[in-house]
Amino acid sequence: MRSITAKQPGPTNTHDLTTPALVVEGSSLDANIAAMALERPAGRLRPHVKAFKSTQLARHVSVRGGHRHFCCATLAEMEGLAAAGLGEDLLLANETLDADRLGALVRRDDCRITVAVDSPETVDVASSAGADVLIDVDVGLPRCGCLPADAGRLADRARRAGLNVRGVMGYEGHTVAEADRDQRRRAVDESMRLLAGARDAVGGGLTSAGATGTFDMHESTDEVQAGSYLLMDSAYASMGLPFATALSLEVTVISRSPKGWCVVDCGLKSLGMDHGNPSVEGMSVFFCSDEHTTLLPTEGAEPPPVGTRLRVTPAHVDPTVAYHSLLHITDGDDVIETWPVDLRGW
Amino acid sequence: MRSITAKQPGPTNTHDLTTPALVVEGSSLDANIAAMALERPAGRLRPHVKAFKSTQLARHVSVRGGHRHFCCATLAEMEGLAAAGLGEDLLLANETLDADRLGALVRRDDCRITVAVDSPETVDVASSAGADVLIDVDVGLPRCGCLPADAGRLADRARRAGLNVRGVMGYEGHTVAEADRDQRRRAVDESMRLLAGARDAVGGGLTSAGATGTFDMHESTDEVQAGSYLLMDSAYASMGLPFATALSLEVTVISRSPKGWCVVDCGLKSLGMDHGNPSVEGMSVFFCSDEHTTLLPTEGAEPPPVGTRLRVTPAHVDPTVAYHSLLHITDGDDVIETWPVDLRGW
Repeated sequence: MRSITAKQPGPTNTHDLTTPALVVEGSSLDANIAAMALERPAGRLRPHVKAFKSTQLARHVSVRGGHRHFCCATLAEMEGLAAAGLGEDLLLANETLDADRLGALVRRDDCRITVAVDSPETVDVASSAGADVLIDVDVGLPRCGCLPADAGRLADRARRAGLNVRGVMGYEGHTVAEADRDQRRRAVDESMRLLAGARDAVGGGLTSAGATGTFDMHESTDEVQAGSYLLMDSAYASMGLPFATALSLEVTVISRSPKGWCVVDCGLKSLGMDHGNPSVEGMSVFFCSDEHTTLLPTEGAEPPPVGTRLRVTPAHVDPTVAYHSLLHITDGDDVIETWPVDLRGW
Repeated sequence: MRSITAKQPGPTNTHDLTTPALVVEGSSLDANIAAMALERPAGRLRPHVKAFKSTQLARHVSVRGGHRHFCCATLAEMEGLAAAGLGEDLLLANETLDADRLGALVRRDDCRITVAVDSPETVDVASSAGADVLIDVDVGLPRCGCLPADAGRLADRARRAGLNVRGVMGYEGHTVAEADRDQRRRAVDESMRLLAGARDAVGGGLTSAGATGTFDMHESTDEVQAGSYLLMDSAYASMGLPFATALSLEVTVISRSPKGWCVVDCGLKSLGMDHGNPSVEGMSVFFCSDEHTTLLPTEGAEPPPVGTRLRVTPAHVDPTVAYHSLLHITDGDDVIETWPVDLRGW
């Protein structure tokens, strides 16, 4: 990490950070970037910034991994990357009805803007904005995407509206958390078969799909949309992927009870909770409330004293990062850089 | 609402808001303030700002309800209220180890600062900062608070350290979501019996306790710490409380499938999920992902067309508001004010 930039002013030790504080171990982050670049080098991966929402982390990925084309879930992420000079090829892998903001992005002279479309309405918005499009195809996840059988017709409509149809995208989100690798592979293959058919109907071009949980199952997909591999979380860590858990939450023990528990200063406002409770080494999580988590030491140990710093691993990285304004990049206990989470909101 | 301030510039209709957008119906907010003030007038209620994290909403409560003493869960909330001129009597109803920031608050000449303490360590921090204290007592929730039997000893220690012990606080959080009112009442009474014993051991003074779910069960409690009553959510709305659901999330239908669902642009990064899925009138929530929620119309209806605006009611208000930077105050579809959520973070 030290090679990237000079050390910045600020806390030099994680113990000096105001808690709760998001901490990213730099060596793990860089190992994750390298492991992904080996499988999916530049042009074969479009890192998804929704997982980390930081232009400085995006820039680090582009320098270290060579990946300069990014994937976004929101217009705010698109606008932030563009303003940071990272707009070489930005994909809004999501539908939008906001022609004004999309059009303002297209009119920048330092960006290439592509947007997913899955309906006549979203084609009209792309047309009004002048953005390139990918036809978004339902490949099994009950969310966005046109039926595979409708992809060709939608592409024709887009072309009639003067749009450049770059190809198709299809997110196989229903497969990415399947624990059994063989079953996951079969489900991905089935989804990509649907996507390939849609691409043919569209008239060829790019296929964009995938996620961290399926990153190495996409030999015939042009570009994979993965983001969680960079920071990881306890949900993905259980799947045997070649990525290390780089993100944790530094917290402080603020209370200890003679009844055997202790309380740390993180909770529902600093942790995405949809995947369940976070994890803490040597402790079990009793429950989380707004700004507290009650912990029980395992195996009858005494809880740590008030003032102790602990590390909490969130169950789901994306909605966790979205609660925070800073990512502290560390080398062990040294804070070597602090990056704003500057792509939050919409 | 119109009587408070002149209309501000900005969107005049909720349909012009960038979605997802937090929307607060002003008449419901004001009805909630009035209903609470009837039961707990000024001095008998310490509104908890953790539920809304906005200095402008705090000021509105103080003007409309007469409540000028606030309760906070974080130092950032304390600092923000102090900076906004709302520091007449601020309670950090939480333990902190940060003597520097607490001391900086105490040194302001426009604030009164009180902090909860439940251990020798937190007494030392309060002493170093020079803050007044409440002895925080465990009244049944497995979280912060000393044992009732230890309260007197801790108060003695605080006084020996030169601190002003204002009394006791005890949060009966294990009772507040009990659906049966009689059972809830009995549980509150048992907790308040413990708190009263601790107060006697401490040598008298203030008792501070309670929440929205138990606000009318505290005849002998000096001040109730409630915040959710202002905006409400679907969890509290099922409990028969005299408060209206004032908060909702304006969202846009961005996709519609021939398979019968539609997708709106809110999800795990705009909704606190620990209490479960949000609710939408006339629809059932299929699932939420980071920036999407898939909805199924009830009773076989067609999903609404792409571009339709809908209102989503979050299951838990506090961690929902913490994802957003703005609260739009409305009169029907008119946006009459926009208040920053300026007390986020730590």
